[in-house]
Amino acid sequence: MSCFNCQVKVIPLNVSERSSTISYAIRDVVEYARKLELKGDKILKLNIGDPLKFDFRTPEPMVDAIINAAKSNFNGYEDSLGNTELRRVIAERESKNNGKIYLEDVVITSGVTEGVNLVFGATLESGDEVLIPGPGYPTYTAYANFFGAVPISYRTIEEEGWDIDVEDLRSKITDRTRCIVIINPNNPTGATYSKKNLREILDIALEHDLFIISDEIYDRITFNDSFVSPASMTDEVPILTFNGISKIYLAPGWRVGYIAFYNWDTLSDIKEGIMKELRARIAANSVCQMGAIEAYKSSEKYVLEMVSKLKERSEFAYKRLNEIPGISTTKPMGSLYIFPKVELENRWKDDKEFVYEFLRMKKVLLVHGSGFCPIYGKDHFRSVFLPPVDMMEEAFTRLEDFMKSKK
Amino acid sequence: MSCFNCQVKVIPLNVSERSSTISYAIRDVVEYARKLELKGDKILKLNIGDPLKFDFRTPEPMVDAIINAAKSNFNGYEDSLGNTELRRVIAERESKNNGKIYLEDVVITSGVTEGVNLVFGATLESGDEVLIPGPGYPTYTAYANFFGAVPISYRTIEEEGWDIDVEDLRSKITDRTRCIVIINPNNPTGATYSKKNLREILDIALEHDLFIISDEIYDRITFNDSFVSPASMTDEVPILTFNGISKIYLAPGWRVGYIAFYNWDTLSDIKEGIMKELRARIAANSVCQMGAIEAYKSSEKYVLEMVSKLKERSEFAYKRLNEIPGISTTKPMGSLYIFPKVELENRWKDDKEFVYEFLRMKKVLLVHGSGFCPIYGKDHFRSVFLPPVDMMEEAFTRLEDFMKSKK
Repeated sequence: MSCFNCQVKVIPLNVSERSSTISYAIRDVVEYARKLELKGDKILKLNIGDPLKFDFRTPEPMVDAIINAAKSNFNGYEDSLGNTELRRVIAERESKNNGKIYLEDVVITSGVTEGVNLVFGATLESGDEVLIPGPGYPTYTAYANFFGAVPISYRTIEEEGWDIDVEDLRSKITDRTRCIVIINPNNPTGATYSKKNLREILDIALEHDLFIISDEIYDRITFNDSFVSPASMTDEVPILTFNGISKIYLAPGWRVGYIAFYNWDTLSDIKEGIMKELRARIAANSVCQMGAIEAYKSSEKYVLEMVSKLKERSEFAYKRLNEIPGISTTKPMGSLYIFPKVELENRWKDDKEFVYEFLRMKKVLLVHGSGFCPIYGKDHFRSVFLPPVDMMEEAFTRLEDFMKSKK
Repeated sequence: MSCFNCQVKVIPLNVSERSSTISYAIRDVVEYARKLELKGDKILKLNIGDPLKFDFRTPEPMVDAIINAAKSNFNGYEDSLGNTELRRVIAERESKNNGKIYLEDVVITSGVTEGVNLVFGATLESGDEVLIPGPGYPTYTAYANFFGAVPISYRTIEEEGWDIDVEDLRSKITDRTRCIVIINPNNPTGATYSKKNLREILDIALEHDLFIISDEIYDRITFNDSFVSPASMTDEVPILTFNGISKIYLAPGWRVGYIAFYNWDTLSDIKEGIMKELRARIAANSVCQMGAIEAYKSSEKYVLEMVSKLKERSEFAYKRLNEIPGISTTKPMGSLYIFPKVELENRWKDDKEFVYEFLRMKKVLLVHGSGFCPIYGKDHFRSVFLPPVDMMEEAFTRLEDFMKSKK
């Protein structure tokens, strides 16, 4: 095609290669559920990691803080790197839990998701490789693809409570590998990783000059004190810790996350690249950052209450799901999720068909395991254990009926 | 360098090419001002387009709405595409002002900046070209570079009130051109564009199969009803209108913007690409979207008050600046900015040196014009006319003294 009035060739407008590579499988089934709802179905939703959709509430001191902020006209642009007091409080939290850092080592993001976008944007060139847990939260795969890099899944071992298969991880390192992503506690498996496991990964990173992303958004939601941050174990390996208030402090809609830079002295160019991206996008939300300050300063007791409630619910889900013929599951050590295996046999082509049919027949929404990794997540599904026990009992009884009906 | 224990070559970690290309010139001088403040200087800041740093307040109905939202536990994840009621209200606003669209044609972003990021991410391949107003808001240049595309400045003509030089724009179209960005009212020049000007650009877009980005974040802030949206003038040219509550409704820190899709039927792949990006980043802030609904529903009278205040201040700035020997300026038709020319002569190497020296000597912070375009913005500076008249009088008197002292 070429333009009538001049010599310039006209190229039709297309979507970028970059954008067409993003997939976010765990949302597709939601669209289908929406269609059923429009037809009048009532769906039990065990798909989304949002405690506020159930009987959890944002801690009062945090709500009071954003009310005060909005009333005092604290509605202007916040600093691009984040509110100074919030960065100070987070540096203090990280220093106490994981290793000494300073205000300058913390930046505030619009949720961990923005952190992933910014960090991959500042570090990945086309063809670079990122090692991502299989199964793992799909955002890492989506943004690696978005920036033209190659996400490579390393295996985690169901029989060992979804521990990391360090030899598999090691075997997948090439001269294009840039970083290793750890999600700890893991979404979707609920695994936490042992010091031994983490030590081996840190050694690999050091040996191959890789940096580590440690996604710790569920760090306080563990049921046996098994969480260890890799940042607490090294003063050599460059680590970016991702965290925020969404899960632990029950405010996912506020979109306040952070990146903490550990052992980053030799990588100041990358840090400056991330800072530039932060400045270009102006700032994270002002009032909600004031809420986040109160999360870290005065909302500890709410965390303890929530974790105690979640522990009971995780135990119920673990016990009840294992009673169902054709379903077996490891015990979640943390997070909001349980990741059972389904004996598909010849009843369903794959876990996706299983999830769709269960939704259609029994009106319960789960997420298919292959959405978290086509290799190591298949034949599984993810459920939250956020709902009260009676709602879970209802959902899992429907699951039991469903499994039996297909015998 | 290669690893001791295996054959894998180790490549040192570097910042991505992509990220190193971002520059955001208008922030550099802020860093310098910060250093002066740390030394105890008190700086008059005419650099930042944030009304809340002066005597403006977020409208009460909006503040009440976010208070109610936070109190009613509306703190969970919002829909990725935006709150449904907010999208409906915006579709209504756009339909009334600019041309019929529906809820499905509106998505909510974390400010216009996120919109630029998402749209360029979904449309630009390496080497593509984007036509950007010179001078213009630097975010467009930053994100075009970030995605490997080439920002091309088209001329706007100071002598004609910074109207668009359509012939210059036309001459810069190549087979790699993908879209034309219009900022209307313009930041930094305060220009609005005539129907004739816009008609010519729409014709060019149609002829060359380009889409248009119309950044209308200051649409209601005009002093002579001169604003026209290109979306109101065509049912053929694909247009993305960017807007939000930051400026008009005095809530920049809340980060609520939107993209409205006009005449986008044939470009559904690009729309789906943008939707995928929206889903990958989860959602914009939940409580502040509730505030935004009240902006559009019930905060009209606050806009009128603000614009009347700003009109007076813009007139003062225009008159006072033109009294200063060596300074001359066009009259702003809208926005928050005035963009005077400086006779540098042999007194300063360039506008950047001028701005830095004025800051150092007189403690007033402006932004150098070349930060908005090295070609068409040089020899100028940008000032806001947001402060009360007495504060502007103080700042501009210091400018007058400064200019005289360098004779």
